Amino acid sequence: MMKTGLRSTLAAVAVACSGLVGTTASATPTVELDMASTFPTSMPILGTASQDLVQRIATMSDGTLVIHSHEPNTLVPAPDSVNAVADGRIEAAWAGAGWFAGRDTAFNMFSSVPFGPSMGEYLAWLYYGGGLELAREMFAEHGVYNIPCGMIPPEASGWFPEEIRSVQDLKGIRMRFFGLGAQVMQRLGVETQQLAPGEILAAVENGELDATEFSLPSMDQRLGFSKVLKYYYFPGWHQQATLFDLYIALDVWNEMSESHQTIVETACGDVIRDMMAKGEAMQWSAMQEMQAEGVELRRWPASILVELEDAWLDIARNEAANNPNFARVYASYSDFRENYKIWKHFSFLE
Amino acid sequence: MMKTGLRSTLAAVAVACSGLVGTTASATPTVELDMASTFPTSMPILGTASQDLVQRIATMSDGTLVIHSHEPNTLVPAPDSVNAVADGRIEAAWAGAGWFAGRDTAFNMFSSVPFGPSMGEYLAWLYYGGGLELAREMFAEHGVYNIPCGMIPPEASGWFPEEIRSVQDLKGIRMRFFGLGAQVMQRLGVETQQLAPGEILAAVENGELDATEFSLPSMDQRLGFSKVLKYYYFPGWHQQATLFDLYIALDVWNEMSESHQTIVETACGDVIRDMMAKGEAMQWSAMQEMQAEGVELRRWPASILVELEDAWLDIARNEAANNPNFARVYASYSDFRENYKIWKHFSFLE
Repeated sequence: MMKTGLRSTLAAVAVACSGLVGTTASATPTVELDMASTFPTSMPILGTASQDLVQRIATMSDGTLVIHSHEPNTLVPAPDSVNAVADGRIEAAWAGAGWFAGRDTAFNMFSSVPFGPSMGEYLAWLYYGGGLELAREMFAEHGVYNIPCGMIPPEASGWFPEEIRSVQDLKGIRMRFFGLGAQVMQRLGVETQQLAPGEILAAVENGELDATEFSLPSMDQRLGFSKVLKYYYFPGWHQQATLFDLYIALDVWNEMSESHQTIVETACGDVIRDMMAKGEAMQWSAMQEMQAEGVELRRWPASILVELEDAWLDIARNEAANNPNFARVYASYSDFRENYKIWKHFSFLE
Repeated sequence: MMKTGLRSTLAAVAVACSGLVGTTASATPTVELDMASTFPTSMPILGTASQDLVQRIATMSDGTLVIHSHEPNTLVPAPDSVNAVADGRIEAAWAGAGWFAGRDTAFNMFSSVPFGPSMGEYLAWLYYGGGLELAREMFAEHGVYNIPCGMIPPEASGWFPEEIRSVQDLKGIRMRFFGLGAQVMQRLGVETQQLAPGEILAAVENGELDATEFSLPSMDQRLGFSKVLKYYYFPGWHQQATLFDLYIALDVWNEMSESHQTIVETACGDVIRDMMAKGEAMQWSAMQEMQAEGVELRRWPASILVELEDAWLDIARNEAANNPNFARVYASYSDFRENYKIWKHFSFLE
């Protein structure tokens, strides 16, 4: 709750206002915020979404709410972005709850859950199953207001130099991996590291890494993994849906007008809709192009998926035993999924 | 393109404007529109979404864009709402493209497609696969601007008095059914009628109907079908995802400011996100409650689904042969789905 370092940028500016029919000048005070983005603009989907967001907010507010999006590592180190909002060093960040898991491992549950729900079910739990309430309660204790502001479809689950036929083949592999999924891979003997996207390819080329996962095929393609690793594994059991948030310092948020708050929440909701559509649309061409380069697409054998899931359930039980917040969030999530099963079983084709 | 009857409600009102810091009065001209909703406010999800939409637009625009949502049949007969926008009788409607299929059967493709995509894939085709471009081109020819503004998860596919074991059991059944799905049912010998939601239960009770489909379990529950029919069939092969739109007279849309246009498009995108979340969250409790009342939930046998799909493919081929617009839209849709297959095969768990 330390807010002492917060730069005062809630600049209320009186705007000249003619009152003439047809003008669009407004007397609403101008609010400007600096926002640290955790993905570079050059990255498809994840990088462009935050640009989209701030542009739309400026247009909808007739220029009275201007969020300045900054490239990663310019305001603060990228992995530190959410901490920086909580500490009052910056006003806003476009990131994900996993970046805040150093404070409390329960925040991981709001980023992506291994063997977790697909996009529709995750949204259902979040907005109408109690997930967002729990997240807001937890973030508020750190002086942060969180707004769900992006979601992507299933990730791919990794690039390997050779085919993986059993869990034995995973032992000792040095691999870049993220979040709760990394803990699962560790249980199966993988040595995981968390490298930033720009560092991964070089680490594989240098022989420091044997394997890596990063994100969707369209983003993995951009990072060039197909040049050095030929076996590409699916499905993304670790991230069937990944959620992103806009974080705003709670006291900054509370000072905003209802109109500005609604503009931000609505723009973020539409970014979720847009990222889902774009994320689902952009993958097949990337997959086809990489196949043409010689990449071998593989689905994990069922036997390996079972062992990965068992490892995850064991990790979740341990976390719940050791962290009351994790236990609370995991119980809400598990209850919802248990109930959802009847709908899932009957309603979908195939 | 007849716009002569359009009531002039693009009322540009000069708003008093003090220019003081902290005021929220605005000099943006006030625009007011009348919108016919095709679902009553009392209906969950479909009925509440349009209320939500207009409220959010008013708040975001600081009251400078006010859309008055009217209950079905108050401005124009509900099934006529989109026609009324095209004819210049009303400015706006919250409905779906299927309501405009009397003008051109190709509009059905933008509502819901039998054996069609799930929500994510439908959004992908629409926004990034050419679907929305085609829809806008076709609606513009009728003087209408269409904004995707709602989407629901899979519907249930019908209530029957008895178990259906083969397509023979469907022959001669008198059933309420909607859209392209109704054509499919007709091929299998069902006598379909298109009744409004409020008329269906009485028609079953009077013996005028043997069976019915309507929508999601939460809405079917509200309409009381479980009191008279005990076999409830899934999955909704006819509507795995159903899309709704906001329709605005093209000349009214073109006169709106960029800020107002962005507010409307963004609010509509967020309504899609919200309806997906709510639609996915609300079904299991309705299903459990109806089961407790004695409703028997069933999945269609594979053999029946195959015959239904064959009938649909035959209908689609005929429509494409007879209607160049249908052929164009169906080709875009089919090409997208063909490409999407590789992603669908590899990426999802289960």
